[in-house]
Amino acid sequence: MKTQEMIAAHPRKPMMEVSVITECINALVECAEACTSCADACLGEEMVQTLTKCIRVNLDCADVCQTTARILVRQTDAVPQLMRAQLDSCVVACRICAQECESHAEMHQHCRICRTACQNCEKICQEMLSRLPAGSTFL
Amino acid sequence: MKTQEMIAAHPRKPMMEVSVITECINALVECAEACTSCADACLGEEMVQTLTKCIRVNLDCADVCQTTARILVRQTDAVPQLMRAQLDSCVVACRICAQECESHAEMHQHCRICRTACQNCEKICQEMLSRLPAGSTFL
Amino acid sequence: MKTQEMIAAHPRKPMMEVSVITECINALVECAEACTSCADACLGEEMVQTLTKCIRVNLDCADVCQTTARILVRQTDAVPQLMRAQLDSCVVACRICAQECESHAEMHQHCRICRTACQNCEKICQEMLSRLPAGSTFL
Amino acid sequence: MKTQEMIAAHPRKPMMEVSVITECINALVECAEACTSCADACLGEEMVQTLTKCIRVNLDCADVCQTTARILVRQTDAVPQLMRAQLDSCVVACRICAQECESHAEMHQHCRICRTACQNCEKICQEMLSRLPAGSTFL
Repeated sequence: MKTQEMIAAHPRKPMMEVSVITECINALVECAEACTSCADACLGEEMVQTLTKCIRVNLDCADVCQTTARILVRQTDAVPQLMRAQLDSCVVACRICAQECESHAEMHQHCRICRTACQNCEKICQEMLSRLPAGSTFL
Repeated sequence: MKTQEMIAAHPRKPMMEVSVITECINALVECAEACTSCADACLGEEMVQTLTKCIRVNLDCADVCQTTARILVRQTDAVPQLMRAQLDSCVVACRICAQECESHAEMHQHCRICRTACQNCEKICQEMLSRLPAGSTFL
Repeated sequence: MKTQEMIAAHPRKPMMEVSVITECINALVECAEACTSCADACLGEEMVQTLTKCIRVNLDCADVCQTTARILVRQTDAVPQLMRAQLDSCVVACRICAQECESHAEMHQHCRICRTACQNCEKICQEMLSRLPAGSTFL
Repeated sequence: MKTQEMIAAHPRKPMMEVSVITECINALVECAEACTSCADACLGEEMVQTLTKCIRVNLDCADVCQTTARILVRQTDAVPQLMRAQLDSCVVACRICAQECESHAEMHQHCRICRTACQNCEKICQEMLSRLPAGSTFL
């Protein structure tokens, strides 16, 4: 995967180790894709009626992860406070989506895969949060 | 604008008055557009070197507003906790972007317009936050 | 709406009249929002099973319109060839979505509103296409 | 990478071999990320003034690839005509971005990596286009 190479080729010094940023971006991108795919797979199930909440939280989680990934990819003039707020939102989105997918995991393989992607993403976002510079107070 | 009509035509009862949701979605969409445009206008300025932070925070704010708008547009099985977390992140994004645009507002009309869009969006997101059902504890 | 003001405040001379670009951006943004809302409203209907194709094409159309809007908002070093290709894709997305929503329009008000937004957006994208500088051959 | 697993777990039979779809989605996601990163790395360069066109086409290419990836991830009621139109636009976006990055490749490692990601993505989108069912005429 090119993420590590791209971050390493950036003219600005990253805020923390490249491997940490890279792992978080990869988890976010993978989770966004799993959620987009799970929403669509649920839509294709005969029992879609029982999966509407799952589709909805999948769509939210995909959007939130994609936006969070873009913010973390950007290294120029990064603002820790926004990284923190968006990672917080992402943790919530992943937790809700993992919880909903869990309830369909015995029935649907796509919910099982998506649950694991969300759990992994939540964990890695939490780690990222714990390494961010202490909350600035400039706002 | 069609937002109000769309929310009113939705089969599920909205979580709060349609006019409040509508106003917030409109502010978010307008802010996302102002930020995308301001980033690009800064990029087209001769003195782009002095505007790189402005471009960066504009790009972040556009992504955050767009994701927040999509979450608020969705009325089916809405999760107040995620609405709250994403609105919190949006308030931070708008505040940072307004502050940065403010510092170029005397020089650039596009920064002036964008600052006002961000300030308006922040205020309306704050109002929305104050009307959300009290923080659930299910997570 | 701020679109016209933003385009007018841009340092680069736009490729065509500001009012034409503005009208197209507004139609795209409105269509993206109508499609996001219609997908979610369909998801909230008891008969969601009969609306899965509508949800799918709504999600595609929302993404395509949003990307097309961002490209048109950007005025710095615009590439007519990409504007043309993306507008072509948007015309297809809007036509497919309008057609699908039409088939549910008698039953669902949200499909009726969304169909009209898609038809309007397709028409305005076609007008925009007819005003773009003739296809360059530089690629 | 989870893409293949997700497509394989989908209830609907995919339009073509899973490995072909998977390869295309992965190339699109990687290209979107490379473009987002290259735009930001250019923004962080001292000589940003000479890189404004590169930033602009990077931003467009990132948006186009992300939308194209979402459309290909969705397997329920896929419409070949829209896949074709959006892939066509993506080919144009990748070609323009590869060409622009090529002109800065000797100077900037991030432009070199991004050029390769765009060239790879264009090639794989072309292959995907050649395997799509012949253009339907239903519109």
